[in-house]
Amino acid sequence: MSTVSDRNLTWHDHAITRKDIEELNSHKGATIWFTGLSGSGKSTVADHVSRILHARGVRTAILDGDNVRHGLNKDLGFSPEDRTENIRRIGEVAKLFTSFGVVNLLAFISPYRADRDAARDIQEKGDFIEVFVDAPLEVAEERDPKGLYKKARAGIIPSFTGISAPYEEPENPEIHLHTDGQTPQESAMEVVKKLEELGIIAGE
Amino acid sequence: MSTVSDRNLTWHDHAITRKDIEELNSHKGATIWFTGLSGSGKSTVADHVSRILHARGVRTAILDGDNVRHGLNKDLGFSPEDRTENIRRIGEVAKLFTSFGVVNLLAFISPYRADRDAARDIQEKGDFIEVFVDAPLEVAEERDPKGLYKKARAGIIPSFTGISAPYEEPENPEIHLHTDGQTPQESAMEVVKKLEELGIIAGE
Repeated sequence: MSTVSDRNLTWHDHAITRKDIEELNSHKGATIWFTGLSGSGKSTVADHVSRILHARGVRTAILDGDNVRHGLNKDLGFSPEDRTENIRRIGEVAKLFTSFGVVNLLAFISPYRADRDAARDIQEKGDFIEVFVDAPLEVAEERDPKGLYKKARAGIIPSFTGISAPYEEPENPEIHLHTDGQTPQESAMEVVKKLEELGIIAGE
Repeated sequence: MSTVSDRNLTWHDHAITRKDIEELNSHKGATIWFTGLSGSGKSTVADHVSRILHARGVRTAILDGDNVRHGLNKDLGFSPEDRTENIRRIGEVAKLFTSFGVVNLLAFISPYRADRDAARDIQEKGDFIEVFVDAPLEVAEERDPKGLYKKARAGIIPSFTGISAPYEEPENPEIHLHTDGQTPQESAMEVVKKLEELGIIAGE
């Protein structure tokens, strides 16, 4: 496999594999899939996790509505079929990032269990870490960071998760966060500790 | 911006940006888009480039038919509309990889100029490097690594690029490779030199 050494790195006479990249990075690739109601804290926690990981030299990528709904999935709406296709594509992109050694953090409501399970099933065992970002509806609605619950209650937004569309809670998530009882930093550290336990990143 | 230092790395109190990741990696993110006929050498050259880059510590990702057509784009066929949507989605994924500091190498025939230009236009100026992998049709057909030209000539594959579907050559590609006159290693080094010139990776 190794024939020529170059600055302590290695020339490969085979195609570069995921394992080669993980060795270069000193951590594994994985998908950290945050699911929960709007306002539950998914993006905030994912953001904190990415900062902690970055400070430890881990390669991260955050996928969320901002960079997916206006790009890859801009042709999709919010019907059940489109929500399913939305999550299907995101799951495929997550798999690609994992396969190139990146710890990818996804922050999408992703309300349907079957859709999340499908995203898990296309990845190798252990590569998909489901994080249930759990806040009571009252708390999420009280936070309402984007004013969406108000619009949903007023009927301006149809089929809004938790109000007029279902949210199916994860049954066996790898991590279950209760964001009404802890700070985003505490939630993020729970995730980081789990990644250490799972051997995705090195312990401190 | 920096408040806490951790193993020579830096804690960020803002969300992690592309620039932060590029600093961590010591190279920039970019899309290297290989376009050309089937059998022109796109995948072979991309593969060689990825090995050279990996040996220099550059984070790479290869997107090609193998990991995209069976995953993200498995719902798409080969009609002009589906080819366009295929390239649109690939372009969006490439943009995501670039935005997280990865040098992503794409090997797709991508026969339509408008589709390639659209993939270029969604990225920031300088992030999209178009590589025209140019081999005469006779040479590509003679190579026929997957036996596809034979099937196309026999009419088993309809609308096959170069035979029964058009290939629109790039007008101003950043790199124009003539793969019938050089080895894959030589072609790959041309690409790597260009990445050095453009400041995407450090020179040796």
